[in-house]
Amino acid sequence: MSDIRTIYWKDRTVVMIDQKVLPAEERYITCRHHEDVIEAIKDMTIRGAPAIGIAAAMGIALGTFHLKADNDETFHQAFHLICDEFSQTRPTARNLFWAIERMRKRFITAMADRPALEKSRTAEQALDDVYAPVKQALIEESIRIGKEDVAANRRIGLNGRAFIKNNNGILTHCNAGALATAGYGTALGVIRAAHEEGKAIHVFVDETRPVLQGARLTAWELVKDGIPSTLITDNTAGFLMQQGKIDLVIVGADRIAANGDAANKIGTYSLAVLAKAHGIPFYVAAPLSTVDLHIRTGTDIPIEERAAQEITNIQGHRIAPEEIDVYNPAFDVTPGRYITAIITEADVALPPFSENIAKLFPHQSFQTS
Amino acid sequence: MSDIRTIYWKDRTVVMIDQKVLPAEERYITCRHHEDVIEAIKDMTIRGAPAIGIAAAMGIALGTFHLKADNDETFHQAFHLICDEFSQTRPTARNLFWAIERMRKRFITAMADRPALEKSRTAEQALDDVYAPVKQALIEESIRIGKEDVAANRRIGLNGRAFIKNNNGILTHCNAGALATAGYGTALGVIRAAHEEGKAIHVFVDETRPVLQGARLTAWELVKDGIPSTLITDNTAGFLMQQGKIDLVIVGADRIAANGDAANKIGTYSLAVLAKAHGIPFYVAAPLSTVDLHIRTGTDIPIEERAAQEITNIQGHRIAPEEIDVYNPAFDVTPGRYITAIITEADVALPPFSENIAKLFPHQSFQTS
Repeated sequence: MSDIRTIYWKDRTVVMIDQKVLPAEERYITCRHHEDVIEAIKDMTIRGAPAIGIAAAMGIALGTFHLKADNDETFHQAFHLICDEFSQTRPTARNLFWAIERMRKRFITAMADRPALEKSRTAEQALDDVYAPVKQALIEESIRIGKEDVAANRRIGLNGRAFIKNNNGILTHCNAGALATAGYGTALGVIRAAHEEGKAIHVFVDETRPVLQGARLTAWELVKDGIPSTLITDNTAGFLMQQGKIDLVIVGADRIAANGDAANKIGTYSLAVLAKAHGIPFYVAAPLSTVDLHIRTGTDIPIEERAAQEITNIQGHRIAPEEIDVYNPAFDVTPGRYITAIITEADVALPPFSENIAKLFPHQSFQTS
Repeated sequence: MSDIRTIYWKDRTVVMIDQKVLPAEERYITCRHHEDVIEAIKDMTIRGAPAIGIAAAMGIALGTFHLKADNDETFHQAFHLICDEFSQTRPTARNLFWAIERMRKRFITAMADRPALEKSRTAEQALDDVYAPVKQALIEESIRIGKEDVAANRRIGLNGRAFIKNNNGILTHCNAGALATAGYGTALGVIRAAHEEGKAIHVFVDETRPVLQGARLTAWELVKDGIPSTLITDNTAGFLMQQGKIDLVIVGADRIAANGDAANKIGTYSLAVLAKAHGIPFYVAAPLSTVDLHIRTGTDIPIEERAAQEITNIQGHRIAPEEIDVYNPAFDVTPGRYITAIITEADVALPPFSENIAKLFPHQSFQTS
């Protein structure tokens, strides 16, 4: 198993591998302020729905740690302001909002548990005593979210590996690996689990324009783990299916609606249509934190549009004419009818998804956690 | 109409625009020897099936011009050797072999028409007199092939423009424009013809990895001609179809089998499957020189595989890990059943293609010309 550490809390900082410069450089950056984490999410130093959620949680913990409020109301307001900042970084990944909500909840319980303010002490002393446990609770919660994510991915791998048979050719898109999560990965977690149980597999990796997460990140993870794999352009996926080289497609997700419609990296929808046309099963692997029960269908999932420069420039080189108009949606939505199964840590959901996704959440309260 | 000159004969050289450096630079290169033309075809300084054919014709004329043979047999052998060299440059484009065959035929007729050798003169004098008309005939033939190509594209445009309606959104892949031909273009010729008759259209341009002919060449042509257009990643095509923004797809072809199966730039097959799934018509525009009646179905079309570096490196920058395996087919084959119509200069062929393509060639002799 790979030793990739995507993101972790260290002393009073958040450390993450810089995914912008992989695979040329394995460089870790240290975020000392929550604004550094916000910037890292926005510029895709860290990306992947679960990893974004963990980054937000740790970023909120980091920002809260440095807060100097002299009363509960100020502290409360400042905390939620930090949360709001993170909620504006990227719009599509459900895990981001899930993690922020979870941090807000932990804040409330931690505030309820804190010692009462002692009026007799100086404001400075009082703050140190009173908010330190809350700050510590948030740090621990963010670390816990990361640990739970790795555990969830391990279970996703175990739940999904039976879908991969010996000698299967597997197509994946973008990066749903260790780098997209706190470790092990979702779609790549299923692939890793099949590889670990000794199945002979071959992974075809879509390079995934425009940001090339497949060529840069997934290829790097697979090479590191010694899993047989071949890099292709996104244009080659259909041709491979036509040749009968693909037995299944497996991808991650950024947000899954209550009916099973799944937002994922742009190009996923095309793959799903191609898979259906070739009679190839199409799997989505994602933790429950990716599921958004408040959204009934995929049409309500906000799709982020990113800068034209991601397409017109590569590694700083301009490739397209200056005057050309560009459309750069970062995600698309695959309707549930194209999805064979959704693999989560709780269980595998099969169609009809509207029924079977709900069953993954036995406690109604989970819907908003 | 654009003033793009893709390739032309000038004095004793072949001049072509360097498509490797477009759109950053509009640089013309001068080929003084036929080896320069061979290199330009191989490294895609010139690309696009019809343009490759014209380059080969002019390259053969150039190489033959410099031949110094002292008898017919030597001249004959040397000529065919040059032809053979060109036939080994790239395997997929039919137009290349079509042009070479046509040059071989012109050689035979020109040789038959030449003055008889005069034994009394010096070898040097004799050669100058005897082979000069043959050399001149080949130069004229290659120029004629280029002129005929532009005329064919104009007729393709007129034959196809009715398929484009006012306010249509059009998707195209790779570059089937002026740069892929001697001028005006095939798929872009149809788009230009619709634009020229005043229809409001919007062209969505697939960037077309790995060589980015869409982003670099098609976008450049459309901007130059003031045709409203938007650049997208290849991954975005399906999403646009899902949104109802694409009314038709139109592409060129590198080789069309007798049954209508069409080889074209990798990714074309995926687009055809996506178009069918969305009920969107899918058109192929190509001159008759692209049709290969000797090949019954697309499975017999040779598909070129190109260097891994086209995928792993962009503009000299390595983007993928060193150890990753790469598969880089330059073309794929779209079965005729996905094609709504094939637009040629002779007529529009509708399904069943096996019947209707044959009708485009009323003279059996045309099959091998």
